[in-house]
Amino acid sequence: MTLARAGRATAPSRLIYGPLVRAALREDLGDAGDVTTNAIVPTLARASATLVARAPGRIAGLEAALFAFHAFEPALAIDALRSDGDDIAAGETLATVRGSARGVLGAERTALNLLARLCGIATMTAAYVRAVAPYPTRIVCTRKTTPGLRALEKYAVLCGGGANHRFGLYDAVLIKDNHIAVAGGVAEAIAAVRAGAGHLVACEVEVDTLAQLHEALAARADAILLDNMTLEAMREAVRLTAGRATLEASGSIDLESVGAVAATGVDLISVGRLTHSAPALDIGLDIVS
Amino acid sequence: MTLARAGRATAPSRLIYGPLVRAALREDLGDAGDVTTNAIVPTLARASATLVARAPGRIAGLEAALFAFHAFEPALAIDALRSDGDDIAAGETLATVRGSARGVLGAERTALNLLARLCGIATMTAAYVRAVAPYPTRIVCTRKTTPGLRALEKYAVLCGGGANHRFGLYDAVLIKDNHIAVAGGVAEAIAAVRAGAGHLVACEVEVDTLAQLHEALAARADAILLDNMTLEAMREAVRLTAGRATLEASGSIDLESVGAVAATGVDLISVGRLTHSAPALDIGLDIVS
Amino acid sequence: MTLARAGRATAPSRLIYGPLVRAALREDLGDAGDVTTNAIVPTLARASATLVARAPGRIAGLEAALFAFHAFEPALAIDALRSDGDDIAAGETLATVRGSARGVLGAERTALNLLARLCGIATMTAAYVRAVAPYPTRIVCTRKTTPGLRALEKYAVLCGGGANHRFGLYDAVLIKDNHIAVAGGVAEAIAAVRAGAGHLVACEVEVDTLAQLHEALAARADAILLDNMTLEAMREAVRLTAGRATLEASGSIDLESVGAVAATGVDLISVGRLTHSAPALDIGLDIVS
Amino acid sequence: MTLARAGRATAPSRLIYGPLVRAALREDLGDAGDVTTNAIVPTLARASATLVARAPGRIAGLEAALFAFHAFEPALAIDALRSDGDDIAAGETLATVRGSARGVLGAERTALNLLARLCGIATMTAAYVRAVAPYPTRIVCTRKTTPGLRALEKYAVLCGGGANHRFGLYDAVLIKDNHIAVAGGVAEAIAAVRAGAGHLVACEVEVDTLAQLHEALAARADAILLDNMTLEAMREAVRLTAGRATLEASGSIDLESVGAVAATGVDLISVGRLTHSAPALDIGLDIVS
Amino acid sequence: MTLARAGRATAPSRLIYGPLVRAALREDLGDAGDVTTNAIVPTLARASATLVARAPGRIAGLEAALFAFHAFEPALAIDALRSDGDDIAAGETLATVRGSARGVLGAERTALNLLARLCGIATMTAAYVRAVAPYPTRIVCTRKTTPGLRALEKYAVLCGGGANHRFGLYDAVLIKDNHIAVAGGVAEAIAAVRAGAGHLVACEVEVDTLAQLHEALAARADAILLDNMTLEAMREAVRLTAGRATLEASGSIDLESVGAVAATGVDLISVGRLTHSAPALDIGLDIVS
Amino acid sequence: MTLARAGRATAPSRLIYGPLVRAALREDLGDAGDVTTNAIVPTLARASATLVARAPGRIAGLEAALFAFHAFEPALAIDALRSDGDDIAAGETLATVRGSARGVLGAERTALNLLARLCGIATMTAAYVRAVAPYPTRIVCTRKTTPGLRALEKYAVLCGGGANHRFGLYDAVLIKDNHIAVAGGVAEAIAAVRAGAGHLVACEVEVDTLAQLHEALAARADAILLDNMTLEAMREAVRLTAGRATLEASGSIDLESVGAVAATGVDLISVGRLTHSAPALDIGLDIVS
Repeated sequence: MTLARAGRATAPSRLIYGPLVRAALREDLGDAGDVTTNAIVPTLARASATLVARAPGRIAGLEAALFAFHAFEPALAIDALRSDGDDIAAGETLATVRGSARGVLGAERTALNLLARLCGIATMTAAYVRAVAPYPTRIVCTRKTTPGLRALEKYAVLCGGGANHRFGLYDAVLIKDNHIAVAGGVAEAIAAVRAGAGHLVACEVEVDTLAQLHEALAARADAILLDNMTLEAMREAVRLTAGRATLEASGSIDLESVGAVAATGVDLISVGRLTHSAPALDIGLDIVS
Repeated sequence: MTLARAGRATAPSRLIYGPLVRAALREDLGDAGDVTTNAIVPTLARASATLVARAPGRIAGLEAALFAFHAFEPALAIDALRSDGDDIAAGETLATVRGSARGVLGAERTALNLLARLCGIATMTAAYVRAVAPYPTRIVCTRKTTPGLRALEKYAVLCGGGANHRFGLYDAVLIKDNHIAVAGGVAEAIAAVRAGAGHLVACEVEVDTLAQLHEALAARADAILLDNMTLEAMREAVRLTAGRATLEASGSIDLESVGAVAATGVDLISVGRLTHSAPALDIGLDIVS
Repeated sequence: MTLARAGRATAPSRLIYGPLVRAALREDLGDAGDVTTNAIVPTLARASATLVARAPGRIAGLEAALFAFHAFEPALAIDALRSDGDDIAAGETLATVRGSARGVLGAERTALNLLARLCGIATMTAAYVRAVAPYPTRIVCTRKTTPGLRALEKYAVLCGGGANHRFGLYDAVLIKDNHIAVAGGVAEAIAAVRAGAGHLVACEVEVDTLAQLHEALAARADAILLDNMTLEAMREAVRLTAGRATLEASGSIDLESVGAVAATGVDLISVGRLTHSAPALDIGLDIVS
Repeated sequence: MTLARAGRATAPSRLIYGPLVRAALREDLGDAGDVTTNAIVPTLARASATLVARAPGRIAGLEAALFAFHAFEPALAIDALRSDGDDIAAGETLATVRGSARGVLGAERTALNLLARLCGIATMTAAYVRAVAPYPTRIVCTRKTTPGLRALEKYAVLCGGGANHRFGLYDAVLIKDNHIAVAGGVAEAIAAVRAGAGHLVACEVEVDTLAQLHEALAARADAILLDNMTLEAMREAVRLTAGRATLEASGSIDLESVGAVAATGVDLISVGRLTHSAPALDIGLDIVS
Repeated sequence: MTLARAGRATAPSRLIYGPLVRAALREDLGDAGDVTTNAIVPTLARASATLVARAPGRIAGLEAALFAFHAFEPALAIDALRSDGDDIAAGETLATVRGSARGVLGAERTALNLLARLCGIATMTAAYVRAVAPYPTRIVCTRKTTPGLRALEKYAVLCGGGANHRFGLYDAVLIKDNHIAVAGGVAEAIAAVRAGAGHLVACEVEVDTLAQLHEALAARADAILLDNMTLEAMREAVRLTAGRATLEASGSIDLESVGAVAATGVDLISVGRLTHSAPALDIGLDIVS
Repeated sequence: MTLARAGRATAPSRLIYGPLVRAALREDLGDAGDVTTNAIVPTLARASATLVARAPGRIAGLEAALFAFHAFEPALAIDALRSDGDDIAAGETLATVRGSARGVLGAERTALNLLARLCGIATMTAAYVRAVAPYPTRIVCTRKTTPGLRALEKYAVLCGGGANHRFGLYDAVLIKDNHIAVAGGVAEAIAAVRAGAGHLVACEVEVDTLAQLHEALAARADAILLDNMTLEAMREAVRLTAGRATLEASGSIDLESVGAVAATGVDLISVGRLTHSAPALDIGLDIVS
């Protein structure tokens, strides 16, 4: 009930994005600062600016991006007109920033770089989500994220309507082929995990064949990743599993193929490109007065 | 002479990429570490792995990426077989890593995430560079980079055969429309810069019209950015400028149009998507024994 | 199989304990350094020292503690004679450190402070583990850890033979009374979690009554925390659950009562004092030459 | 006069505890945040909470602990009802926190972990102080503190009515047996210190025998630590010293023996367990509406 | 026009000076804080203080220095009465600070240390600028700055009326004798730079002889540094150059000789001692009530 | 005995100077690195360089300064030919650095900036020390140090033959006029300190008059600072004190007056300019092959 009303993912805390945004500002400003603006724009000059989408997309990361303006110039008045998770058309305004012209111009690129990237991820995710809309299948992301930005990028996937896979190596088990080889089999690997990991660490196993799927089911894996299987094999996997584990399809699934994969009945489809290859959404800053 | 022989860009120092790679490892490992591997793979198990391109591309960032293995497990033996700036075919091996299996598996994703991104940038850059090969025009990047990764991403553009625009707001002047409006004209803006910035701060001006180009030339701008001009206007700009300033074309130039833009005779073409939208190059790690 | 042979928990990486140990050295050395030793002990004086247990206990954190010597004076020769997870008697030597006397003396307290705390946790954990040895019940820790030391303290619990509960708010769900109140019931809370959290996020529910236990079982919670229940109620909970979920007993369970709790058949007993109130193990450094 | 009226120790500055509390929050929240609360509790839900002692004790560190709520959610209304240095009974409320329910729940454990530890130290210190109340002897702590928390733990000792020994290796000289051995005697060691350390660096010497005490007095040590002496020897030391130096008793002195030690007339009794082994005070957070 | 009215350099952002000032406070306060003030001055005592110049000079860095008071005690009321770039006489007040006496006293030294250094640099710079006032020559600083303070020290030079040379190795090219030797000549060195550096990276060459000057001019260097040339040689260099490049004189030029150097017609005179050897300006804090 | 043989101050640990040197390198190299050298000097070019004094002086900080080369390029061979505390003549070589030419050139300025500053402090200190050589008086520094460099600058004073006053507000008490005013008198201030500060915190009092001196002696201050007294008053103070406390002269004492002050018999003379106004020692780097 609560969720239905809220319907929004929780944005990362300022404890997470604050240091990152400040470092990005330092990266762009260097020691000398904005030499162009400092030479031309008087200290007291004021500006009113809008952040405008130049292309349609899905919003993500607005709070973190706008924080760039605040961190550079705390006196700026910053108003978000739209929210993360909203769809936006080309030409629509996401936010306004008013106050010191130097403040607006100095933080512009840092804010836009972050926002464009996160909206890009959300936008691509939303496209995949739409493509599987007829099915209960969920689109999930992977650990193929930008170094340092994982919390924000995972959140952008949620804004796009996707779901999060594990956040890192630390919060869930994913047994891959090399682990199985070392352990001596799927069952042995799962047994080792059950013995060695905490009771709240869920366990997923990557399988290449239906034979391995049987082993994983027998060993009561929480989830099973079907790696690069044919549609037919996936359908058979769904039939065999019969709800005893969460099934995830993986392996170079693109916008064209994702619908057919969802139609097999798998629960999840993981898409690495959501975070490693989504093009930035084109967002600009217009000085309106 | 020296340069002709070397022919390679200088990779960022470990002082730059070291903290970034360590933070990325911490992001992936969390406090609990690689719970899967820790539960399954014995401490003394050893592995020999190769980093293999799954698609053709241009290499960039190999040293920084391989540092992830070293930072996580200093005892690993790491050998780069190829170099930044090399073209690589699908299936070719970039590097080998041997030693503790836990060390190899724990750093794998961090290394690959960084490498795939930087190679992606270099690969897209190389494509643009090839497209303008008949002309002396150079492809340059922008400040539209990933927060925290600018030094590495700018370097990846060099590995792709491109050149670097300014690194930030601090190392060169780029006068845009808002600056011109505040200053009261192109000439006034340039004059303010000459008065207020250091003598080694070069000055580029963004112009929308040939009239502004004239002003910029008269004010002896070092470089002039032709913003969203038609091919015809650019050709005319080249003619008018006659080598008195560096001319840069900018504005949604893609792989299809970049050749025609180069043919106008502009010196530089800046391409934001090199750093904000290049898809990652598909690179994987194979355990070979 | 692998685990049986290895039988040891994985120590946190130097990426985790390194910064912490360096900060602790800085905290003890300040800007002026070890003014006593600097005034009295010549630069070239050498010392050979042993780390000796003054009381019996269980070892944990030896690598991190010994790193203090290395971080302060890289030329010191450091040898661990025993391993994490070993039981040690009063008077036994854990490690030797040889080299610059200034190096040994300057890092002594930092190393001992860390080691004594972690061994203290492991030692108390081992006592609880021994007390439940007749039963399959496992002793687990909580999030009641020292700020900044969680990864090391959780590891010390493993060295003591215990198991880890979730590491933080981020890696598993634990639904408490306030969550249930907000959600409108146990079932509603679990449903919200299943809808909102990733598929690898396990879900535990804290219940006060057997009625709530029924609800939690019906909603297929992965684990159920029996909060401050009587032994009788816990026995009944075990009977009712019949293996359908992991059962955890919690609430001021001490060394005297823990055996009786284990006898009820619960799977886990969580003990906050392992990390928030374990007395340090008395370990000293002796200069032997 | 001022002090008599104030009667309270000075809490560490936010410059000290701020980074520590923020790091502790990050440690508990990870990248994914409070997944339970985020899934169940709506963004706009509000809560009113009290921090309540579950056991009697002495308060210390309230400001730093409450800062956890502020750092996580600046909009929370935080009111301290009691002060550091106050004694508190079981059931009494220390503070209230009102506002976003997510803010309250997300910072709860971090705040309590810090507060419980510091109150635990103050509470144990107060017990020792009470035990020596008939005498002018003061209870002092040692450098056996938790890595990273020394400033706060030393302050907690003050809140308990104890006094601080030196803060680290840097702010005073403490000559131990190894130093004496290297220097060739107590007098030589003190002479080296007087020659090599600044004029405001006070000098304490650890002695095992009354013969060494004589040497230390002759060399005009500021303070002398009587290491593991019998009560009789301590009485004799007090007689011999006759106020010429501060005398500190040390060595496994517990609550039972501390009164007798104080009765010998020593000025100070140092107790390592105040900071390395004090059990946490049981403090909880109750949601009251 | 804007500049003429503003006439002031832009102070570094708090993003730059904030961490530096906080670290300086931590350096002075240590873990124990201001033990003198904490023992003597009651928490509620209030003070009103003025920052007063004890000697005449030029102000620089007032905002950053006053931030020390704010960072230590946010409740202090801080008012700057004068501005960076102002000349001030001995006895004049720069700012007032009112509020908690502990706050004023605890931050006093940190604020003064920073302010005295930056004003010292501005004051020495102003003296050099006055000495060349009859000429259009500008005084510029070098990279010989205090580790960690470059942004602030470069700014102090601007406050003194000087100009900034490059900020570091990264923002402009300065070809020195070793570079020329490696490259095989001035022309070759400049050619290598034009090929290898970005189009907005200006290029200065250090020359020892007029022959090298000719080479540098022929190769179209943006600026040429005349290293330790005689006045006569500099005059000839000015004549030969005829405005084709910016000319910078360098080499142990002091207040006595700087006027004569300016009279040669060089554009810039660089003075290392502005930042590496300027004596601090004597500024004190007076408690006025 | 040991000290007589060693006769050298202890250099700060790499734990202290390491982060500082790395930050200074980052400050100079920025994101783009040494653009001049990268464009001209081939990766494999090698160089052999010497650090040479251009003026006579006293060495301090050689280890920290040379660490800049190591931190930038670990493969460089670095040899110190002289030691901290040595006097050096103009033209003498302090150290050699051999290896990658890029490594040598990239770290040169950072190393020299640090070394020149610290040697400047040691050199000025040595001059003051020589000026008081006929007397037992010691020259001491103050807290007027460069933000962030205090540990190194205090050490440079030791290298110059001076002694260290307190390091910060935290390690000793210095009661000034404002404290006395608040406390209600010298005796009251000292009493408050004795009651409120630890037993190893030494206590110095600043006095303006002989009347205050009497009070301070009566209250058994450890040391007394004679603030801006006449020579005659200082002589009288020495006579009155008769060894009961350490006497420190302070207040604008320069090289000309310092001998006469020492002749009064005071124990210490504090000189702020040692750390806030010492000119850098001219040290250069010569490429010798």
